[in-house]
Parts: sequence; C-alpha cells; structure tokens
Amino acid sequence: MKDLTGLFNPKSVAVIGASNQEGKIGYIVVDNLKKCGYPGEIYPVNTKADGEILGLKAYKSVLDIPGDVDLVVMSIPARFVNDTLRQCGEKGVTDVITLTAGFKEVGGEGVKLEEEMADIAKEYNMNIQGPNCLGSLDTYTPLNASFAQEMPEAGNIAFVSQSGAMTVAILDWSLSEGIGFSKVVSLGNKVDVSEIDVIEELADDDETKVILGYLEGISEGDRFLEVMRRVTKQKPVIILKSGSSQAGAKAVSSHTGSLAGNDFAFDAAFENCGVMRARSMQDLFDYGLAFSKSELPKGKNIAVVTNAGGGGVLTADKIEELGLELAELSDETKDKLKEVIPDEGSVNNPVDVLGDAPPERYEKTLEIILQEPEIDSVIIMACPTASYKAGEVGDAIVKAKETSDKPIIVVNMGGPAFEEENVTLRKASIPTTIFPETAVNILQMMERYATIKAEDQQSCLDQITDVDYDAAAKIINKAIDEGRNALIGSEAYQVAKAYNISAAPIVLATSAQEAADAAEEMGFPVVLKIASDKILHKTDIGGVVVNVQTKDEAENTYNEIIRKAKEAHPDITPDGVEVQKMMPSGHEVLVGMLRDAQFGPIIGFGMGGIYVNLINDVCFKLGSGINDEVIDDQIDSTKISKLLKGYRGDNPSDIDAVKDTIKRVAKLTMDFPEIKELDINPVFVYEDGCSALDIKITL
Amino acid sequence: MKDLTGLFNPKSVAVIGASNQEGKIGYIVVDNLKKCGYPGEIYPVNTKADGEILGLKAYKSVLDIPGDVDLVVMSIPARFVNDTLRQCGEKGVTDVITLTAGFKEVGGEGVKLEEEMADIAKEYNMNIQGPNCLGSLDTYTPLNASFAQEMPEAGNIAFVSQSGAMTVAILDWSLSEGIGFSKVVSLGNKVDVSEIDVIEELADDDETKVILGYLEGISEGDRFLEVMRRVTKQKPVIILKSGSSQAGAKAVSSHTGSLAGNDFAFDAAFENCGVMRARSMQDLFDYGLAFSKSELPKGKNIAVVTNAGGGGVLTADKIEELGLELAELSDETKDKLKEVIPDEGSVNNPVDVLGDAPPERYEKTLEIILQEPEIDSVIIMACPTASYKAGEVGDAIVKAKETSDKPIIVVNMGGPAFEEENVTLRKASIPTTIFPETAVNILQMMERYATIKAEDQQSCLDQITDVDYDAAAKIINKAIDEGRNALIGSEAYQVAKAYNISAAPIVLATSAQEAADAAEEMGFPVVLKIASDKILHKTDIGGVVVNVQTKDEAENTYNEIIRKAKEAHPDITPDGVEVQKMMPSGHEVLVGMLRDAQFGPIIGFGMGGIYVNLINDVCFKLGSGINDEVIDDQIDSTKISKLLKGYRGDNPSDIDAVKDTIKRVAKLTMDFPEIKELDINPVFVYEDGCSALDIKITL
Repeated sequence: MKDLTGLFNPKSVAVIGASNQEGKIGYIVVDNLKKCGYPGEIYPVNTKADGEILGLKAYKSVLDIPGDVDLVVMSIPARFVNDTLRQCGEKGVTDVITLTAGFKEVGGEGVKLEEEMADIAKEYNMNIQGPNCLGSLDTYTPLNASFAQEMPEAGNIAFVSQSGAMTVAILDWSLSEGIGFSKVVSLGNKVDVSEIDVIEELADDDETKVILGYLEGISEGDRFLEVMRRVTKQKPVIILKSGSSQAGAKAVSSHTGSLAGNDFAFDAAFENCGVMRARSMQDLFDYGLAFSKSELPKGKNIAVVTNAGGGGVLTADKIEELGLELAELSDETKDKLKEVIPDEGSVNNPVDVLGDAPPERYEKTLEIILQEPEIDSVIIMACPTASYKAGEVGDAIVKAKETSDKPIIVVNMGGPAFEEENVTLRKASIPTTIFPETAVNILQMMERYATIKAEDQQSCLDQITDVDYDAAAKIINKAIDEGRNALIGSEAYQVAKAYNISAAPIVLATSAQEAADAAEEMGFPVVLKIASDKILHKTDIGGVVVNVQTKDEAENTYNEIIRKAKEAHPDITPDGVEVQKMMPSGHEVLVGMLRDAQFGPIIGFGMGGIYVNLINDVCFKLGSGINDEVIDDQIDSTKISKLLKGYRGDNPSDIDAVKDTIKRVAKLTMDFPEIKELDINPVFVYEDGCSALDIKITL
Repeated sequence: MKDLTGLFNPKSVAVIGASNQEGKIGYIVVDNLKKCGYPGEIYPVNTKADGEILGLKAYKSVLDIPGDVDLVVMSIPARFVNDTLRQCGEKGVTDVITLTAGFKEVGGEGVKLEEEMADIAKEYNMNIQGPNCLGSLDTYTPLNASFAQEMPEAGNIAFVSQSGAMTVAILDWSLSEGIGFSKVVSLGNKVDVSEIDVIEELADDDETKVILGYLEGISEGDRFLEVMRRVTKQKPVIILKSGSSQAGAKAVSSHTGSLAGNDFAFDAAFENCGVMRARSMQDLFDYGLAFSKSELPKGKNIAVVTNAGGGGVLTADKIEELGLELAELSDETKDKLKEVIPDEGSVNNPVDVLGDAPPERYEKTLEIILQEPEIDSVIIMACPTASYKAGEVGDAIVKAKETSDKPIIVVNMGGPAFEEENVTLRKASIPTTIFPETAVNILQMMERYATIKAEDQQSCLDQITDVDYDAAAKIINKAIDEGRNALIGSEAYQVAKAYNISAAPIVLATSAQEAADAAEEMGFPVVLKIASDKILHKTDIGGVVVNVQTKDEAENTYNEIIRKAKEAHPDITPDGVEVQKMMPSGHEVLVGMLRDAQFGPIIGFGMGGIYVNLINDVCFKLGSGINDEVIDDQIDSTKISKLLKGYRGDNPSDIDAVKDTIKRVAKLTMDFPEIKELDINPVFVYEDGCSALDIKITL
C-alpha cells in the first residue's frame, strides 16, 4: 500500500515551472496554493527564476531549495519532465504531481517517456500522480495543488477521476449544489498512482464518508478487486465507468461470449467487490450526496408522507418498479395518525397530510411514522401550495429527525419556494431532491449498500479439493504443444472428468472395434459422431448417428460414418469417431466462462439449448470470489430458474448439482489461465443430478 | 369540440366568493387577476358584499352584474356551488372554474353533488372546469384565474394537470429554470372539462408549441385516441401518467393477461395515438424544454463535439444504448476539421476540440459539422477548463446555429461557470443540459416525435371483409344466453373459422359414430379429447388420445375415453369428445387479446408454448388503429421474430400468415365487445401458412 500522506498533507510544496505570467498553469498553481490557505512552505521553481514569483522567493532548481520538499507539482514541457523528476528523487521528494501532457496519450515518443517515468517512480520510491492531469485538492489540509479554477467547499465526499475535464466540471457543478468535498484527485495517465492507491488511502481517511469515481479503464484487475472488497466494507464506493469493455467486444466465438453485453465484465467485477456502479453523471452525484448526508436504511420498507396525492402515487409507482416496499402501517400507527391528519387526508401509506398541512402536522406525522418499527426510511414530499410554509416545515422535519436514525429524504417539488429550506435540510444531513423518482433511486442504492456491507464475499473455491489438476494439465498442455486452440470433445470430457464435472462420457475411437468396446463400457444407447475439426456440417453428411443400441450396431455404424465422411470429403482424414453416452434429456441449461483481461474468468449461467442467443437468459458472475450466495443469486436472476424449481407443479430439478457444476467450472478456469473460453451447452438437469453434454474448451 | 375561448380569453371575469380577507382563496384569486394585468372587467361577487373588494365594486350575486360575464371563478362552500352554477347559467356565463373541493373525491354526498353539477353543465351548455382544482393561467391574455402564488413567464409550453399540487410544484420549478408557459390548466375532478377538451383546444393555439400533461386516469378512451391521433400530428404531446392500470391488475386469467404489465394498456394506447410517455417528472420537463426550443431532427445521426474526451465517451455510450447513431463523418468533413483542430484533438466523432479550445475553434468546428449532410443533430459539450471562455463559446454556438436548422443541444457540464451562457443559449432556442445523458435522452424523444409525425395511423381492419359476423354472433350469443363465460373448443373454432382465422378444425362429437365421421371429414391423424369444463386434468384420467389414424380407431377411442371419464368421475356427464385435426408442429407463437375498460382490445403477440410465462416475450398493441406497420413493429419487438425470419440458416416462416391472424383477432375482438379475453396458444407457424391450435375465448 502506497503512503500518500505527502500528496494530501505535505509540509512543503515546490511548484516546478512556476511563473509570474497570469494565465499560465505555473502561475495558477502557485496562486491556488496561496489562495486556498495552504499552511506549509511554498517554493516556486523555474530555471529562469530571478527573485520572486507571486511574492515568494523563487529557485532555479528543486535542488537549490534549502529545506525538505514533500510534494512537487510540475508543469514544464514534457521533454524536461523525466530529468527534473530525477532531481526530485535526489532531493528526497516523496510525492510528485505531473500536470504536463504529451506522454502516453499522444503515442510514439510520449509512450517511451512515460515508461521511463514509471521506472523513475520505482527507482526513487516516489509517488507520481499523472502525467496529463489536473492535480489534487484537499479541503482539510487545505491544499489546492491543481490548476482548477475553484476550491470546492469542505465536505465528506471524495472524488477520484481519470479525466481532468470531468473534474473541473464536477467542481463547478458542486458550487451550485452546495456539495462539499474532502479530497479531489485527477489521476491522468496513471503512470504510478492509480485509482486503487487513492481509494485505498481514502478508506482510512476520517474526513471521507463516501468515495465517488469516474473511470475509463482499470489497470490491475486482481488488485482492484482485492482492495475494493476491503474498502467497500468501510465506506461506499460509487463509480461511473465509461466506454465499453474490450473483453466484451472481442469475445464472440462462443455461446457465452455472444450473450455477454459490452460491459458485462465491469458489471460482474463491480458487483463482486461491492463497488456500486452509477449509470449517469446525475446518478453519481445523487448517490454521492445521499451517502454523504444520510444513515443507511435497515431494510426495504419505505413510508411516504406527502401534501399532494399525485406525488404520492408517482413515488409509489417508482418504489414498486425498483423492488422496494411501500410498507403497510400498523393499526396502532394509523390510529395515532388519525388524531393528527384530517379525514380527507390518508393515514395509509402514502400518507397524505393534505395541501393545507401546517408545519406541526408534518412534524407530528413524521414523529409517529419514525416510531413505527416496520418502517426503514421515509420520503417526505411537499408541493408549494398556497398555504405551505416553506422553512417552517423544514424546521419541523429537522426537529422530528432528531428523534430517529432512520434515513429521511425530502422531495421538495419546486424551485425558489424551497431554496432556503433545502439549505437548512442539507445542513441537518437530510438529502433533498426536486423529483420523487430521484428519492426512490437514492433509497434503492442505499439499501443496496446496506446489503453489500453485510455480505460475505469469501470465495468457496478453496473448498473444492477433489480435482485432478495434473490430469487436466496434461490434456491442456498437449493441445497447446500441438498448436491447437481448442480441445476435441473427448479431451474436453477428460478435463471435465478430472474436475469432477458431471458429464456424459465421450471416447474417441479410431477403429470400429474401439468404438464398440467404448460403447459397451459406457453403456448403451450411444451416439457416434465423426471426429474432425475440418468437417463442419457433420449431420448433413451423415456423420452423426444417435441411439446406437448394441455392440454390433456400434461397429457397423463406425464403418458407415467413416465411409460417408470419405465420400463427402475425400481430401480429409478424420481423427476417428467420437462415441458418447446418450443421456436422457432434462432441462437444458448453459454454463460457460469468458476470460476478461482484467478480472479473469467470468462465469455465465442460464437457459441452454439451440436458442440461447434468441432467449438470452444468462447471468454473469466473476469466477474469483464465487460462493454459494453468489451462485444462488446468479441462478435466481434467470428465467430458467423457475423451471428448475418446479414450474406449475413439476417436480423440482437438482439445483445443487447445477451449483456444483458452476463451482467446478469456476475452479477449473481459475486454475487454468490457459483456458480462454469454456462453453457447456446444454447441461441436462434432472430431478437427481445433471450431465454436461457438449463441452467446448478454447485455449 | 368544446369552445374554451371564455376559459382562456374572457372579456370579463366574475369571482364568486371574492373576499377582502388576505390569505383567503377568494382574496388571492381577485388579487391574482389584478396583478397579472388581466385587461378585461373583474367583478368580485360575495353574498355579504358591501361596497368594494380589493378596490373593485362588489356584487351580491352574479345576476346583479350589469354587463356580460364570460368566465366565473368560484370559491364558495360545496353545498352552495350547484345553485350558484344555475345562476351562472341563467346569466349566460359560458365558462366556470370551480375551485371548491368536497365533491367526488370525498365520496358519499359529494358524489351526488358532482353528478348534479355535470347535469347543470349540460343543461346550460356551460363549460365547467374542476371542481377541486387550482384554476387556469394564460400568459398571453394575460389571465391568472387561479390561486397559484406565482404567474409563470410567458413561453410556448402548455401544461395540463389532474393534480393541483403538481401544478404549483411545476410553476414554482419553472421559475428557477427560466421556463415559460403559454397556458396552465388544473383539471381537478374533470366533471365536465377534461384533458381531451383542453388538449384539443391547445392544438390550434398559436402560442403553444408543445403540450405537457400530468394525468392519473383517462375517462373517455375512444375519444382520447381519436383526438390525440389528430393533435399529435400538429404538435408534440408528452404525458406523465401515474398509477397502475385497472385492466392490467384485473386481467390475470389468461396467458396473455398474465404477460401484460400493470400499465400495458396506457403504454399501448399512448403509442397508438402518438402521445409520448414521460417516465418521470424530470423527463417530462427535459422533453418539454427541448421541444419548446428546438427543431426536430431529420434522422438518428448525431455528431458530438466536446472539449473533454471523457464526456464524449459517456455520450457515445448513451447514444448506442438508446439506439441512436454516432454518425461517421465524411473524409471531406474530416479534412476540413483538421484545419481547425490541433493534432492532439480528434476529427472523428465524438470530435474533440481539446480543453484549450477557444471560441473560434468551437464555432468553426460546428459550422463544418452542420454542413455535413449525414448529420441530423449535434450535441456540443463543454467542461469549464482553465482556458474555457464561457459566454464567448455560447455566442459562437449561437452564431454557427444561425446557418442551420438542425437541432443543437448544448451540454454545459458544471454550475456557476455556465449560468450566463445557458441563458444566452436558451434565448436563442438552443436547449442546454448539465449532463450528457439528458441530451441524448432528449434527442431520442425528438427523433421519435419526428417519426410519429410522419407515421400513418390508419387502421387496416376495415379492409378485412371476408368475415361472417352473423355466424360468430350466433355462437357467442348462445353461450351468453346459457349463462356461460367461456366458449368450448369447438365453438371457439367455429368463431375463428367465421373470421377466417387459420385454425385446426375441432368438432364436438356426442357419439362414437360422430367422432369417426368428423375425423374422416377433417382427415387423419386426429386427437380425441374428453369435452367437459368440469374435468380439469384430462390427460391424467386418460381423457386425451393423440395420433388416432383410422375411422375404427376413432370409434373405439371415443368409447374408451367416455368409459375412462365415467370411471374417474362417475358423477360428471361429459359433453362428449372433441375431435381435432392433428397438425404438424411448427414454431409456436401466441396471439391474444385483453380488453381494456378505456381503450378496448389490446392485442398481444409473442413466443408461445407451455413456457410463455417463463419467457415473457410478448408485445402489446392497441386493436383500434392496428395496421401493417404496427403489426410489423409488434412482431419485430419480440425475440421469436428472429426464429420466424429464419434463424441460423433455417428457412423463414410465413410471417404474413401470422400478421393475418393478428389482424383477424383484432377485427373479431373489435366487432364483439362481448369477448373479454382471447388466447390462442400455440399458433403453429409453418414455412407456408399457420394454424391456431388452442383457442380460448372468455366472455
């Protein structure tokens, strides 16, 4: 774990490339450091320095500075950066922010310069943020080591961004929304300091309650997962990830691949490590604000209090849509409410306090509802009716809120009428929104985080020990040695067998006698199929014969298949004939694996059969960290699960056997990074057990 | 069509219940009329009037007023309302706004009072808005005939709302967003004036460019559809509809019913008549603002211009998600852009003008892109970088925009930095948003409206003439006369046959001989099935025999089935045995109908078979107004359509036959309101033709 103290709380800062010329970045940075009230030493550095820069003594080189330098902010032409970084190293600087652009992002020479920079960071054990970034801000130090125009208000939201432009957008937007930040970090090209380093640091930062991120890519998948699993137990991490996953775009050769969305790997990875994914900038900030202000709900039950029936209905619609609960109020609570709310109102949830509700009615209603044990959170809505007393209602809500630690979100539907009240409420840690749908969105995300905090994310794969790694390795290595990028059916079966994946036996026979013996050993009936990766339409040339019942029939069928294959493709020498045990048919499911470059195996489960692409009923989970809860959730997310559980009076299928197959596929593909894709379609699921029919393993 | 001139542009207004007491509604209304600058006569009326009210001569009764009165605004206790309305009628008042609450919404006596009010409206041919409403505003007259606290700015958005509280919320919100309205109408209980009347009036209102609505229910489905089909060709209508459809909640007895969402009827109806449905308040206003400002795009091709790569990626993601196109720029355009944009930028779409882009670079880039014929609309994004010149960029965009009628939406990502620029842009009819996702949402809705305007919404059902109404009527009426709520299989087949729906013949045989004869006539093989609505598990008792091949076999099987039925259920006398022609199996689809109380038949099409509920691959369209385009869209919306079109090299199925079945089901259920639900599952679809297997008709 990197120590980023020097980045956020340095005792002294040198600005290399400092300038007296207004508008220059080297000017803005020194000016920002001064204006923000940074309490440490500021040393302007410029090779042409002569006297002072912005009233501070200037130096020609960082090496000329008399005292220690913790942090260097650098804005000099790209070609001078690396030499200057070495000087920083010599000086004993711990942290450098390289604002300069012109590295990896421009290609060519820039890429080489950036590689050199990475080496320098290692050589001097120096943290380098950037290059090509906006800098960092810490509102508590306070430190504005950036060329952003504005210092945000202090608050408990940290923001980490891969885009400098997004960072300034967000800083500016926060000013109009009254949102405060603890730290803001623009990562740039991430030559050394990454989102993982920063988020790991933020986890233990007392001033940070919620971590927001904007990312375009993640560079160390395994470490990301490992760190985030830890951090998300401490505080919420919400990331807006843009762009489409490479893995998703590339992997289209298998069933599983064609079913995966563009960004399924990030979805699976974020879910796995408890990172919540924002789907838009609006969401990112709605959620950030809510987590920064409010406690977490203990469950899904929401009460709605409104002075307008229409708003209550909209809210109820959204609560249902997002799978939360509009809680039924107890008779006792209703009786209490009846004493407060006139008859024309409603004491049922959504509770209607009526358009003429005075502040006391809001306050008493809220107090009664907060006492109801079944209620986990409350949405309070107001329309600015002629008799609505904005401000006073806000005070009443703040007062009622003091009696409870349940989340309250206020929906103030309007503009100027609520401006002051909203400030009051936010100061009292009560999030406010204009629209009811936003409030429900927020509560859903908060409820989800409460679940994430409580979840066990321990992998169960270590418990699977009855596997024969060596046997599988032998088959896989043989194929690799032969330069093949796929296993043939009988090999795939052997690999599955080595990992105790329940599968229908397949044997490659190279003579009629072998075919007959194999069939006898596995038991009749069997299927015979021409074995050759060069013959594509095997059925069309008579290369597949099902329901072979006897040894004699097997022998004859072998010869017949070979004859027909040679007739259709005189130039091809088949590998032989595959003999597979015919299994009774069961419910058809698919179990597959796609390997993501960052996050490793991603396991798909869903409806199988020939129409999988049509139905697209598949759910993906990260192989790393898979366990019973995750697999239960995976299975339950699919439509086929209803069939497996016993649809319309059918007997239930053996879901445990399916789970076992999923686990073993995860184990196998975690153990063998050589396996690029794996596709079992179908797996027949029976009332007792299951059987993998068609196993494709791509290397 | 109602004439609502007196409601929006009256020559004189009387306020009955006018008051000198500040805070009273009768005071606020008179005060609002005076303050808004209403140019006509204002007559305060109060039975206790003595001298003046708010400086205006007051009258004891509307009958005492010397001149004509066009509009009356009434705020008196509910029990006096109807008598006073009669006085208004006698006086020749054309329009009345009844603000008073305490009618239908309180139940009991209130319901009766409201029914009486409806009769008064008819008797005097007087338009009555409300009761239980906020009133109306017209910013052009100008007229504030409401007790809303604020008069909105003048603009070209009309807003019609069933909720008074939502109306005030929206008026207040508009003030902070600088949104102007033409007319605002609070409908209340809709005793007489409905959303249909108001929207019909707004269609011809020159000051209204876009119509927004908030509705909780619609009372005259057919008229709504008829009027909206017309209005939506003139201007966009966007409605936020809250609450769940009754029809959806009730209709769960059939397959089709269980597949319908809660609100599918409104979705189908809105789609049918070109009304666009907002999914949230936020959407409603985003769309309203965009339509009020911008021209319509001519197609789906969007160009994005940004000074921040990250924002461009987010926008591109959303464009793909919503099915719009990030257009490829022509080489010619790219060459022109290269002269304007530095090498580090991008001349590919999204076009990156870089963080240091001066206003001229924005202007020239935009001019070049607007000239590209392939581009239908442009999203211009800005982050407030250190060198960004807000205001000047805005001016540059306005200037470039003057050369083109393509829609431009500006995404200004930030807060205070863009405040002034946003005002400039909106004044120049360029919509602005903070977040990129909103801009793409807006363009999608605008592109959709452009399509709606061009669509043919003519029903094709009149063209279907080869149906035997009388034959179907005879069977249906017989069942109704016998007090049955469902047809038996052979009856349903006869009804389908009368409407030329391609179906497998079914005959009810009451003797072995009849069974054998029927089988011979329809052709072997046949299925025999015990006919009795009292025997539920027909297969379990041996009541179903498939693949009957000969006349003798049919006779024997008949007797056998009757024997087994009597053995299993000695107390039940079966109706006989149904003989159905066995059809070769084909792709299984479902065609069904649910009748909505407001909008009539809603036709479902999708994947059929025993797992329809599991897969839920069904699309619903309104029967009224169904035509080839609508059915094509319906079929294309389902996954099964890929199968029908020839999946992975299969021969395509006869989609025309499916379309014919859908049309005829629509025709049948439009002709017979007695049919409550209809369910054909499966319809077998072949390469040539199709055949309805299991037809259920519920009355």
